[in-house]
Amino acid sequence: MKNFCSDNVTGIAPEILAAIAEANRDDAMPYGNDALTQQVEAKFADLFETEVKVFLVATGSAANSLALATLSPAYGAIYCHEEAHIHVDECGAPEFFTGGAKLVLLPGAHGKVSAAMLDERLQNAGFGVVHHVQPAAVSLTQATEAGTVYSVDEVAAIARVAHHYQLPLHMDGARFANALARLGCTPADATWKAGVDVLSFGATKNGAMAAEAVVFFNPSDAKTFHFRRKQGGHLFSKMRFLAAQFDAYLAEGRWLHYANHANQMAQCLAEGLQRIPGVHLCHPVDANELFVKLPTSMIDGLMADGFQFYRWEADNQIRLVTAFNTLPEAVDALLESAYRHAPQEEGAIATPA
Amino acid sequence: MKNFCSDNVTGIAPEILAAIAEANRDDAMPYGNDALTQQVEAKFADLFETEVKVFLVATGSAANSLALATLSPAYGAIYCHEEAHIHVDECGAPEFFTGGAKLVLLPGAHGKVSAAMLDERLQNAGFGVVHHVQPAAVSLTQATEAGTVYSVDEVAAIARVAHHYQLPLHMDGARFANALARLGCTPADATWKAGVDVLSFGATKNGAMAAEAVVFFNPSDAKTFHFRRKQGGHLFSKMRFLAAQFDAYLAEGRWLHYANHANQMAQCLAEGLQRIPGVHLCHPVDANELFVKLPTSMIDGLMADGFQFYRWEADNQIRLVTAFNTLPEAVDALLESAYRHAPQEEGAIATPA
Amino acid sequence: MKNFCSDNVTGIAPEILAAIAEANRDDAMPYGNDALTQQVEAKFADLFETEVKVFLVATGSAANSLALATLSPAYGAIYCHEEAHIHVDECGAPEFFTGGAKLVLLPGAHGKVSAAMLDERLQNAGFGVVHHVQPAAVSLTQATEAGTVYSVDEVAAIARVAHHYQLPLHMDGARFANALARLGCTPADATWKAGVDVLSFGATKNGAMAAEAVVFFNPSDAKTFHFRRKQGGHLFSKMRFLAAQFDAYLAEGRWLHYANHANQMAQCLAEGLQRIPGVHLCHPVDANELFVKLPTSMIDGLMADGFQFYRWEADNQIRLVTAFNTLPEAVDALLESAYRHAPQEEGAIATPA
Amino acid sequence: MKNFCSDNVTGIAPEILAAIAEANRDDAMPYGNDALTQQVEAKFADLFETEVKVFLVATGSAANSLALATLSPAYGAIYCHEEAHIHVDECGAPEFFTGGAKLVLLPGAHGKVSAAMLDERLQNAGFGVVHHVQPAAVSLTQATEAGTVYSVDEVAAIARVAHHYQLPLHMDGARFANALARLGCTPADATWKAGVDVLSFGATKNGAMAAEAVVFFNPSDAKTFHFRRKQGGHLFSKMRFLAAQFDAYLAEGRWLHYANHANQMAQCLAEGLQRIPGVHLCHPVDANELFVKLPTSMIDGLMADGFQFYRWEADNQIRLVTAFNTLPEAVDALLESAYRHAPQEEGAIATPA
Repeated sequence: MKNFCSDNVTGIAPEILAAIAEANRDDAMPYGNDALTQQVEAKFADLFETEVKVFLVATGSAANSLALATLSPAYGAIYCHEEAHIHVDECGAPEFFTGGAKLVLLPGAHGKVSAAMLDERLQNAGFGVVHHVQPAAVSLTQATEAGTVYSVDEVAAIARVAHHYQLPLHMDGARFANALARLGCTPADATWKAGVDVLSFGATKNGAMAAEAVVFFNPSDAKTFHFRRKQGGHLFSKMRFLAAQFDAYLAEGRWLHYANHANQMAQCLAEGLQRIPGVHLCHPVDANELFVKLPTSMIDGLMADGFQFYRWEADNQIRLVTAFNTLPEAVDALLESAYRHAPQEEGAIATPA
Repeated sequence: MKNFCSDNVTGIAPEILAAIAEANRDDAMPYGNDALTQQVEAKFADLFETEVKVFLVATGSAANSLALATLSPAYGAIYCHEEAHIHVDECGAPEFFTGGAKLVLLPGAHGKVSAAMLDERLQNAGFGVVHHVQPAAVSLTQATEAGTVYSVDEVAAIARVAHHYQLPLHMDGARFANALARLGCTPADATWKAGVDVLSFGATKNGAMAAEAVVFFNPSDAKTFHFRRKQGGHLFSKMRFLAAQFDAYLAEGRWLHYANHANQMAQCLAEGLQRIPGVHLCHPVDANELFVKLPTSMIDGLMADGFQFYRWEADNQIRLVTAFNTLPEAVDALLESAYRHAPQEEGAIATPA
Repeated sequence: MKNFCSDNVTGIAPEILAAIAEANRDDAMPYGNDALTQQVEAKFADLFETEVKVFLVATGSAANSLALATLSPAYGAIYCHEEAHIHVDECGAPEFFTGGAKLVLLPGAHGKVSAAMLDERLQNAGFGVVHHVQPAAVSLTQATEAGTVYSVDEVAAIARVAHHYQLPLHMDGARFANALARLGCTPADATWKAGVDVLSFGATKNGAMAAEAVVFFNPSDAKTFHFRRKQGGHLFSKMRFLAAQFDAYLAEGRWLHYANHANQMAQCLAEGLQRIPGVHLCHPVDANELFVKLPTSMIDGLMADGFQFYRWEADNQIRLVTAFNTLPEAVDALLESAYRHAPQEEGAIATPA
Repeated sequence: MKNFCSDNVTGIAPEILAAIAEANRDDAMPYGNDALTQQVEAKFADLFETEVKVFLVATGSAANSLALATLSPAYGAIYCHEEAHIHVDECGAPEFFTGGAKLVLLPGAHGKVSAAMLDERLQNAGFGVVHHVQPAAVSLTQATEAGTVYSVDEVAAIARVAHHYQLPLHMDGARFANALARLGCTPADATWKAGVDVLSFGATKNGAMAAEAVVFFNPSDAKTFHFRRKQGGHLFSKMRFLAAQFDAYLAEGRWLHYANHANQMAQCLAEGLQRIPGVHLCHPVDANELFVKLPTSMIDGLMADGFQFYRWEADNQIRLVTAFNTLPEAVDALLESAYRHAPQEEGAIATPA
């Protein structure tokens, strides 16, 4: 209840666990040759209002790396934000799955790549020059590693640049649900209509046990994925249990419901923390992550009260992540603790709402 | 009920599903930094009566490939049976994870590598000769792809040869439970005491949802595994759900109980089928797989009656696999069907027991 | 003079060394952007009477591996003879450059793959089955590792099978000159007109210092080669010196002249050795290699007389290789030595011609 | 004569070409099993006054990539300057040969990594954290891509940081001769005594045809190189011709003689250009490369007069590279042309010395 380290400290949403149990009723053919998997894969076409090719895997690193490996040769360059999960937190998985491609890092405020910066870099990328790795793909994270969300227009602008240079656009949507809940548009508007070519559609951080979907909006891009997934050891024999997770996740708009809740809890935290003197939000809180600078004594106090979160000691920054099952009571308790540990010399302190 | 295609057509054993639900009670730190994972990893030391390093993954291909990648450089050679799963059924995963190692294929009756054949090949392997890939590991499958089980002495003889050439011995134990149920010895006797250095310890085919353990009996061999698992996209954030599966699987000897049942069902099938004229078992039935030659008309009849299995049309061979949850009624029904479809001109046919 | 170990024990043919010196006169732009390289690349179109894409590299392993990497994905299967150089003698280079492809080995007398055997294997290759590596290319060696030469009809038959399965045909022509000298047809007849799609066209073993050309008969297959060569460290800055070697090699039919001489020397050896009782040629001598079984005493005698060659002690077999600069006197001396060391008890021995 | 594009536009120094011809006298065993190669490899021990393991290859990218592949696992991080050749100009070769390692880029004035910056980055590198690539090596370029030379103290300071974190230090010495000519110390002082563990020792840019040596100062680091070189297609059959180039290159201090000349020519250019108003040297000229900003009209004038060099139009910058065979007359002619094309409105212009 007091763990705000990440949305992956959560367990399985009850409806998703129930779906796993339900899928356990009978035998089923393996490796995705079962009715449920085929039904779920088909559901994505409805969800995105277009023909898609969908592949289920169990981890976000697998989704991203396999997707990128279909887009980039070994001598390719993948353009992404310098804080992108694919660069910082996957232990070189994209390089490994592509056989040696290079990630080209773009700076950008609040975790976002800008279309202008991307364009500038691609102008100088040395297309066709044999000494340089060859631009092969652009990858965005939505919601970003800074807890912000690209607007549809921002995505579209980046996609226009990418496509101008004949590059496909990959979206790492480990928190796609949180982004979409924020955007309030359709999944189609947020992706292929804005120019996204391949989406890593996450569910694990938002209530699934271990389930991610790679969604290709241009089915021809997907031709090698099936074999790459197997060669990477990512083809599940009992695939129906991945499918069952997505089946429940997507049913009745549950995925957006979960994400909305997480986002709201993050908003409550943001609003409450902002009212405390000495507390500073480092980035807009668009989704379910907060990056907060606050007095050391307050950090120590929160920890002493049992709250858990990631901390960067160097600059008094912490990260708080909410999830589908974050209790309002836990949010209130954290805020109350923060208020209590606020420096006393600040004078009159606003009380919690 | 009538599906004998594979043990991976089965679902999750009830005790294992219950353990997943049980592990879902509270938040837990991700990536294996939770109490359950650490507890389960420790259990393996008890099980094997020695210090081990254990890593959980979700598929057998991941277990085998990551294990082999810790043992073989890119210019290595991995010696295995020509029908080994790592060669035939993993779409090149070992080659991919090692960065280009070669599988050197050994013939052998009933799916078994012989120590003598291995020795002969290694004598001519060109150790140190720069033109040739360098022997790096030996890999056995236990139970084998032919449904047979190496005796402890056979394993030990192979290990002696491997170790004579300074090569580690890997055991692909996707059906290790079935093998051990057959052998009746301790897990230690069947593995490290016989010379096995690394074991892919499967649970998926024997009642788990998706859970395999890589067990290193020489902890120093395991140094790179942690990073390779992550770079391969095989590190689960909600690791506790892999741990929960193993926790239930290993508790109260359940894994052997499941495997014993599967083996017994296979024995019933073998005994019943052997009594039918025109039916021929291709290999000894040591575990839970039968490879059977039988009249075309009988195969057609079984299929018409709704039974499912893999079929090699060229030589009238089928494979029947039993599992932890195979019903005796299903076995009886299959035998009854086979009897019924036996060629009439054979004269007096034995009736089912 | 007495070294028959290999055609790569030779140095540089005088005309080729002169061409290197000649190319050294002035500065030239690097990486193939020089006049000589472009002129030489163009020469191949004349030589093969068709549009080609040509890339120069310095070793046969580089030529083969880079060529195969353009043809096979990481999950591909490359069909070749079980004694093929790419399998036996390149330390896993094709597996490395493809990122994990598998070589599927075909038996065949005298180092040759048969079209029928290839067809049989491809029929059972599991095209589209996700568990199996996917057939991606067929590779022949011409002349073969057994010193034999495929007839144009044999190549064409294999090409028909490969193309029937949509697979490109690669020819490892490390000794292509020797093969063509034997066949007596045009380079076009021996390659693309017979269905070869990519040729590793060797010069090193036939008088060059270090020069091989990869010739693509379907320029679209070559699209990635330029970058793969660079990423593999095989793009020479002073490329003109590779080009100069080929310039001299191809001029005035010199390459075939060299090869004809080597082949003739091999014929002389073969004819002379066959007349000695107890000597047995293991394969037809079509090019410049002989595999010979002969009495141990004769092998020892040859070695005592200072002749050098590869020896397989197990079966009293040796390999003798002739080259562009093998002296007739050296051939005579070897034959004389062999006669002299022939077992005396054989009775009347034919005298050298 | 007018080509200042690079030191690789040059041909072969006469003494080195003569050595190739000299090595062509007789047959020799292939793959480095010849007397000359063994003799040359031994020479490096004398040159560096310590036991070394030396491997000859033909390109700088091969030398660097194979060296780094011996030091870094697939999940490794290699720290280098953001303008390092291994990052910018090798089309991803280090990533490819390591199987996916990441280059971590450090900024730094004049092409140099600073020990302080390296230390700061390594402090935050996440050693042991499974999500992050693991620091595996540090790589410097000496002379740098900016034409500067690290002092021995600068190298030693970087080595101390690297070694503090247990990381080996690689030096890309494509222009090591030019650096050493500048430093005036012994090869030992400039390398292992300062903490360098592996050196790519270039000769191609300084008079060889195609020859680079990888020198391991800790022989145990070299254990896998032999096989990696072969698997990478970089083992020459006629190795003696690489050895011959080094034999002549190292004899009688010829390599330093060549480099000294190139450096002096660069000094002449630098001194002459600096006296022209409007001309600005971007970096100190420590070796044989100049990066110069000059008026557009002057650049156009130089080109109109037939001089060749690399040009960055965006900031009026050009690169001039001198070499072992640059003629003083060519330097004078370039300076004369530059003076002539200097803007007239600048008033009295200094005349050439």
